[in-house]
Amino acid sequence: MKLAVLGVGVVGKAVLERADAKGHEIVAVSDSSSAAVDSDGLDTEKVLSRKSYRDRVGNADVEDALAADYDVLIEATPTTLGDAEPGFTNVRTALERDRHAVLANKGPVAQRYSELRDIEDESAGTMLFEATVGGAIPVLSTIADHAGEVSAVRGVLNGTANFILSRMSTEGLDYEHILAEAQDLGVAEDDPSFDVQGTDTAMKCVILANVLHDGGYTLADAKVEGIEDLPGSALEVASLDGNTIRLLGEVSADGTIRVGPRLVSENSSLAVSGTDNIVQFEMEYSEMLNLSGQGAGGHETASAILSDVGRLERTTL
Amino acid sequence: MKLAVLGVGVVGKAVLERADAKGHEIVAVSDSSSAAVDSDGLDTEKVLSRKSYRDRVGNADVEDALAADYDVLIEATPTTLGDAEPGFTNVRTALERDRHAVLANKGPVAQRYSELRDIEDESAGTMLFEATVGGAIPVLSTIADHAGEVSAVRGVLNGTANFILSRMSTEGLDYEHILAEAQDLGVAEDDPSFDVQGTDTAMKCVILANVLHDGGYTLADAKVEGIEDLPGSALEVASLDGNTIRLLGEVSADGTIRVGPRLVSENSSLAVSGTDNIVQFEMEYSEMLNLSGQGAGGHETASAILSDVGRLERTTL
Repeated sequence: MKLAVLGVGVVGKAVLERADAKGHEIVAVSDSSSAAVDSDGLDTEKVLSRKSYRDRVGNADVEDALAADYDVLIEATPTTLGDAEPGFTNVRTALERDRHAVLANKGPVAQRYSELRDIEDESAGTMLFEATVGGAIPVLSTIADHAGEVSAVRGVLNGTANFILSRMSTEGLDYEHILAEAQDLGVAEDDPSFDVQGTDTAMKCVILANVLHDGGYTLADAKVEGIEDLPGSALEVASLDGNTIRLLGEVSADGTIRVGPRLVSENSSLAVSGTDNIVQFEMEYSEMLNLSGQGAGGHETASAILSDVGRLERTTL
Repeated sequence: MKLAVLGVGVVGKAVLERADAKGHEIVAVSDSSSAAVDSDGLDTEKVLSRKSYRDRVGNADVEDALAADYDVLIEATPTTLGDAEPGFTNVRTALERDRHAVLANKGPVAQRYSELRDIEDESAGTMLFEATVGGAIPVLSTIADHAGEVSAVRGVLNGTANFILSRMSTEGLDYEHILAEAQDLGVAEDDPSFDVQGTDTAMKCVILANVLHDGGYTLADAKVEGIEDLPGSALEVASLDGNTIRLLGEVSADGTIRVGPRLVSENSSLAVSGTDNIVQFEMEYSEMLNLSGQGAGGHETASAILSDVGRLERTTL
């Protein structure tokens, strides 16, 4: 497939590095201010080299990348809240040109899902977004494969918050100490609010609610509580009864979206440690299904993107 | 899609009960000695009623079901070893008629995988078999979606053996006691050898090896040890160091297939309890991926079958 990759952060870079081995061709790349386009296929090593030395991928404009002759647009620009721009317009442009769109950017499918589905209905293109929830964990494809059977979802969906909580629990240290450690290790950002306030988890839950209930949800529908104010003593008290605390996101069968610190048994599947994620599906016809693994990371997310591209390739051949 | 269902055990029955809700039509059903065929769609309630009162599904022959006008043949007859008949011939017939085949029967894809792939290459039909490994757990679809990225697989793939081991561990009782309990509960068969000798786990590993390494494996390639001779004291000794014992199946990166009781940490993801299964993928580009849930049961297996049918429907539309 011919791919246009928007965004060259860790995710975009990993896609550029691996597309060739999957038999795909990169015909356009853009960062926030520049682009490189070649309908015969770009030399991605050169593009990445220009990016690291000159902080631009080429001499073309972002619009040129959007207008390029690709089969699939990969939207890997940073997630934005509110109107989810410029991601929304990028995806809309691809669909209106009857191209496919694969998103790693959570904004458009969390904030403007129904608009995009309406545009997709009129398009010959398809929109997939496995990478927006749980990295390489096959969350959305499992829901699609078990169409109509997943009634509720619950899980640990943010590696940064989980790292902090599991370290607070094992080390007996306070939030501030462990946050500083996580920032040193690069697990937490300098401004960790998106992760620790529960916003990232909530966006993923909103996406899951949109998928399970055919749209209609935005971040405003989620009841969200973070982990910043959680005292270390809460984890100590929990451990006396063999429990621990995890930041859980939940989408119930009636579409209620809740995110917050919850007591879970230390032996529970939900008590994953470090930066791991876990997703639990309640199924209509079978027992609970658990999927766990690394929920973030450039290569993990790129794996999800490339699996979506592979699905599109198989369904359009 | 128009379905022909061969086999009306717990799996075939669950498919018959749920096909309608998924928008499919049942045009043929057969058990080992009779069949019902109607190109306009069978009344599956009547078929199931005849099966329970008269132990036959209709007045037609099994050959009539194979010759019916279906889109997808569902092979849900009991797994057989050796030449995997009659499952092999059923699947071959469907493919040679340019129909799709979806298997719950492990025999053909464990014992004669390469033959079937060759037949599939000449066919307009596709062969899928998610139901043969791990029930509703999306094992094979995850491998397909992450094409080429799964380097090794390990897991607990037999619920009966796992029930026995986890009960032996928590109750401190011997194999014979727990086996009797499992038989009372219907978790173990009267003749439990297929499960407790590791054969079932080995067949699933052979299927995984065939998928990961493009064929060439049969049960003869697996090194298999069961749990029958495991003394309760082994579990006691293991528990002193926080470990337990599980019947693990493994397919290594070089294609070695091993099944046997293995020491695992009680905190390990592999230490699932009861009849749960877990599959761990070693991935080339990301950290380990874990998938767990109920690996058997009529409805779980039917979910996997219907997800395969859904995939075929999406790729042929």
